[in-house]
Amino acid sequence: MRATVMYGAGDVRVEDVPDAHLIEATDALVRVTRAGICGSDLWPYRSMEPTDSGRRMGHEFIGVVEAVGDDVQTIEAGDHVVSPFKWSDGTCVFCREGLQSECLHGGRYGFDDVDGGQGEAVRVPQADGTLVVLPVDVDERLMPSLLALTDVMGTGHHAARAAKVAPGKTVAIVGDGAVGLCGVIASRRLGAEQIILLGRNPDRIAVAKEFGAKEIVSARGDEAIERVRELTDGLGAHSVLECVGLEEAVLTALGIARRGGAVGRVGVPEDETFPGGVAFWKNVSVGGGTSPARAYIDELLPDVLEGRIEPGRIFDRVTGLEGAPEGYRAMNDREAIKVFIEV
Amino acid sequence: MRATVMYGAGDVRVEDVPDAHLIEATDALVRVTRAGICGSDLWPYRSMEPTDSGRRMGHEFIGVVEAVGDDVQTIEAGDHVVSPFKWSDGTCVFCREGLQSECLHGGRYGFDDVDGGQGEAVRVPQADGTLVVLPVDVDERLMPSLLALTDVMGTGHHAARAAKVAPGKTVAIVGDGAVGLCGVIASRRLGAEQIILLGRNPDRIAVAKEFGAKEIVSARGDEAIERVRELTDGLGAHSVLECVGLEEAVLTALGIARRGGAVGRVGVPEDETFPGGVAFWKNVSVGGGTSPARAYIDELLPDVLEGRIEPGRIFDRVTGLEGAPEGYRAMNDREAIKVFIEV
Repeated sequence: MRATVMYGAGDVRVEDVPDAHLIEATDALVRVTRAGICGSDLWPYRSMEPTDSGRRMGHEFIGVVEAVGDDVQTIEAGDHVVSPFKWSDGTCVFCREGLQSECLHGGRYGFDDVDGGQGEAVRVPQADGTLVVLPVDVDERLMPSLLALTDVMGTGHHAARAAKVAPGKTVAIVGDGAVGLCGVIASRRLGAEQIILLGRNPDRIAVAKEFGAKEIVSARGDEAIERVRELTDGLGAHSVLECVGLEEAVLTALGIARRGGAVGRVGVPEDETFPGGVAFWKNVSVGGGTSPARAYIDELLPDVLEGRIEPGRIFDRVTGLEGAPEGYRAMNDREAIKVFIEV
Repeated sequence: MRATVMYGAGDVRVEDVPDAHLIEATDALVRVTRAGICGSDLWPYRSMEPTDSGRRMGHEFIGVVEAVGDDVQTIEAGDHVVSPFKWSDGTCVFCREGLQSECLHGGRYGFDDVDGGQGEAVRVPQADGTLVVLPVDVDERLMPSLLALTDVMGTGHHAARAAKVAPGKTVAIVGDGAVGLCGVIASRRLGAEQIILLGRNPDRIAVAKEFGAKEIVSARGDEAIERVRELTDGLGAHSVLECVGLEEAVLTALGIARRGGAVGRVGVPEDETFPGGVAFWKNVSVGGGTSPARAYIDELLPDVLEGRIEPGRIFDRVTGLEGAPEGYRAMNDREAIKVFIEV
């Protein structure tokens, strides 16, 4: 079968790999129909050491089940399924709490002998715990938004939850990438009164406004903090979604948080340390981490199916599987917000 | 009048100072009847540069109102009152949200022209917002517990709130000082299923057990983390109260937090940075800061008056006002957990 493989920074190839096949009795074999390129796929694209063996890429995909192992009970051949970006057993203590990202027996696509999502098929471990079956009559036009549920929409939602977004709250979102834009959707959905996006890219700003961001702050650093304060009666935002991860973004997030407010972090930390003293002296809580996308698919799927949210609008470029390398390049060069692959 | 003044590290004196008196129309003049020495009073006791002018000490006190300014409406002469450790106007946006510690027009006792609490009388600014009137028939035996509401009990409670203590939760408390011990009371009151105290001092451990801590971990560092994991099915604690502030304590708190759990910080940070990467990778939220003790007096006062909680048991030494310097020494040498001053 064909699949996307990265051999080093900037070196992505689509090539023949061994066919995906069932190994464990708890597996499902999924024929991929749509896949996404994630912002996190760009980290190795920028920094990976060259390797001869290559690394299978992709963790955002939708597909049709082709076969299941003997122990799989809730998924069957022919099901149209969406997978969160990590697989999880659905039965461990964390899964039962809705924190499947921390599953005791879960893992990531593209590692060990688990296929990546940017290919023709994927062996999905722990199929019962991992996969969500879509309605049989699902509208094809919803596919981009359903694909967004695999990762980016759940991640924006996780930031909003960690930032305690609720009706009446003022929300500021640091970062105009796909996650930040989904943070706008999540914040609006959770009832935010005012949504401020911190970003500079005109295309992304346009999408953010469509999603419900009323104010845009394109300044950076202290100037951005000052501008957000002006927009919030001098107080700062109740809820801040940190969707970048770089130290400057974290400092901005803390700087624009209102006393007693909350910062939700989903930007992968650039650094292992954090200016915690600032948060303490403002009584600001800082939460977040890897999104339990599996739990959020359950929560958000009805809103997608019934058209109340359209996170699929963050996909601004469509390609076939063979176009994946060009998709990486376009996202890395910020020509595209996010690339949708029709496999 | 007599009051406690610090002139430098280890140099505390009780001496004559100008009588406290009304200045603003929103002031109350309170004749102090009981005062406490706070763990935070020990910071300057250990590190203050010598000074000729001295610094007025104390922010934990109970007393009787002697006079009020013309604009004071809810407090009157003769009222027996308890004050939180910061004064606040009760009307600003933060006060109305129950976050009086961040009051836009509030401040601290012992600074500028506001008296300290370890003296015969205090001018209390913003009396309507700050003071809580006690019932006329309050039992004298409750005074230690009522005095604990001024700071230490509210601070332990703030840690428990920030750590999201709730029924069924496993709680670990880092620190066996007066705040940590009040954290045990707060955790039990909020329904914690299991309470683990990390501490080494036998006297404090005995009090912690009376308050409801079932497990004591006296190891430090990695060994403490390992021990807490053993006590929690290998998972760590849902809620961790960090009541020390030193870097090692913060690292221990993060290490013993369960994935998806919460750390509540009230230990004043030793450092301006924080190992935030660890929290992110465990989906652990970190909250806390200066306790809004004023809000918590309202919440906790009925439990003290009706005998459901007895935070006053943390006071293990009683002195008169002239004995304050010896009280500082005893607390600093860890001979006393906390000193109660009968003024």
